[in-house]
Amino acid sequence: MRFVTYRAEGETFYGIETAAGIVPLSPDFPQYPTLKEVIEACALKDLAQAAVGRAPEHRDVSYLPPIPRPGKIICVGVNFPDRNAEYRDGKDAPPNMSLFIRFPESFTGHGQPLIRPPESPQLDYEGEIAVVIGTPGRRIAEAEAYDHICALTLCNEGTIRDWVRHAKFNVTQGKNWDRSGAMGPGLVPFTHAAQLDDVRLTTHVNGDLRQDDRTARMLFPIRRQIAYISTFTTLAPGDIIVTGTPTGAGARFDPPKFLVPGDEIVVSAEGLGALRNTVEDEA
Amino acid sequence: MRFVTYRAEGETFYGIETAAGIVPLSPDFPQYPTLKEVIEACALKDLAQAAVGRAPEHRDVSYLPPIPRPGKIICVGVNFPDRNAEYRDGKDAPPNMSLFIRFPESFTGHGQPLIRPPESPQLDYEGEIAVVIGTPGRRIAEAEAYDHICALTLCNEGTIRDWVRHAKFNVTQGKNWDRSGAMGPGLVPFTHAAQLDDVRLTTHVNGDLRQDDRTARMLFPIRRQIAYISTFTTLAPGDIIVTGTPTGAGARFDPPKFLVPGDEIVVSAEGLGALRNTVEDEA
Repeated sequence: MRFVTYRAEGETFYGIETAAGIVPLSPDFPQYPTLKEVIEACALKDLAQAAVGRAPEHRDVSYLPPIPRPGKIICVGVNFPDRNAEYRDGKDAPPNMSLFIRFPESFTGHGQPLIRPPESPQLDYEGEIAVVIGTPGRRIAEAEAYDHICALTLCNEGTIRDWVRHAKFNVTQGKNWDRSGAMGPGLVPFTHAAQLDDVRLTTHVNGDLRQDDRTARMLFPIRRQIAYISTFTTLAPGDIIVTGTPTGAGARFDPPKFLVPGDEIVVSAEGLGALRNTVEDEA
Repeated sequence: MRFVTYRAEGETFYGIETAAGIVPLSPDFPQYPTLKEVIEACALKDLAQAAVGRAPEHRDVSYLPPIPRPGKIICVGVNFPDRNAEYRDGKDAPPNMSLFIRFPESFTGHGQPLIRPPESPQLDYEGEIAVVIGTPGRRIAEAEAYDHICALTLCNEGTIRDWVRHAKFNVTQGKNWDRSGAMGPGLVPFTHAAQLDDVRLTTHVNGDLRQDDRTARMLFPIRRQIAYISTFTTLAPGDIIVTGTPTGAGARFDPPKFLVPGDEIVVSAEGLGALRNTVEDEA
């Protein structure tokens, strides 16, 4: 079961997706314009209850990111050890995580094309797990961090690689091209730690396995991410943390394997399904 | 004349501030919950017209940032030459501007205290001019960049200096402490290029002049900022670009002059008034 946001019949809906199709629920909850307001009201359960016994009405829809206008989108940089390097006792790991911000405009939905702009041929993929904050907090203790997560989703944190290095500091301009990344397909409610603690995360490009690692190997585990980030900023319902990508992005190959029109990228994680996108040149 | 957002009588208002006081206008425009929606509707002029002949009703208010929940807040890093360095023909300037993002939560309003957190004694000031986008655009030409600005304001881009250097890349965590910076006092409509082209910008701390430079000396002029940023992301009404600070922040002194409780910081620019803030330790 997952909560999705999508276009059908010329309108935007949210609803619950099952194997048989989607039960639209937004018409029943006018008090919540988007899934963000559902999360702010802790009402994912109310949606699930409202869907009981209802027949799916929509199939073959156009997906949007599950939360089209989230609050903050905070991304964790380099967060998996290089498989060829030795990280004995974490000695070579940096002392603190690198954090950057993405705008909602930089993401498209499941099934939509990532857009390669005319300014660069270096569109690259990064498969990640994203956590959605449900309970607000500041200076959250690691031990309580999971209590603040209400849902999970997948992210292809698509990057224009040469623009990441345009300036001496900050990767902002390489990480924020309109529709260069994707989020989805939908929100999976987070109810127990095993959904995050040691989960396999993979990225395939045209069927080739390019990224493959487990959340247990993160340099900065998700509990620590929430504790660290909430030290300086209040996390609010609808905020999203994109938790880091395994090694194996296209830039790591020699020569690099950047994405080209027609490629299909699939980001998958146990329990979260698969986020599938193609690539198109900007019209 | 400037447009301000503030608290009075236990409610949040926006209105027009004159030397005699503030004319509240939000009660007359229920269709625009905040100045962001006013800007999206290009309706600053309608507000100005509605205020004609009205007596000010509010004084001694608590100011909020003029747009409490803007869209994107994009900040330009190092953007003024060091007064002691030579920048012949811009040869030593970096090829591209450094960009980072701040969250709305990191700003308070005019007259409010900047908050120094218990985690660091290194709260620092950075006086800047902020431009508010009024007309959306992507790949905006430098020659047309000013046409996309609808208003100006001042920013104290308050920074927790040691946290800026927590990670190898990205200054995110040093730039996003809750209420570590300020924006305001209000929005001044942007109607002619002379408001931005060669304007003096200063920062005083307890009456001492610490930063003093002119927009004409920016390494990356504002027209170029808009052109560059809109190359990768669509600028939307209510987005804010914080355009860079002159040399002279507290970290530049030896020993550094970081802010302490009781300090008063005043950021001023010709035509934009003065943004005044004190400092308090977090309660």
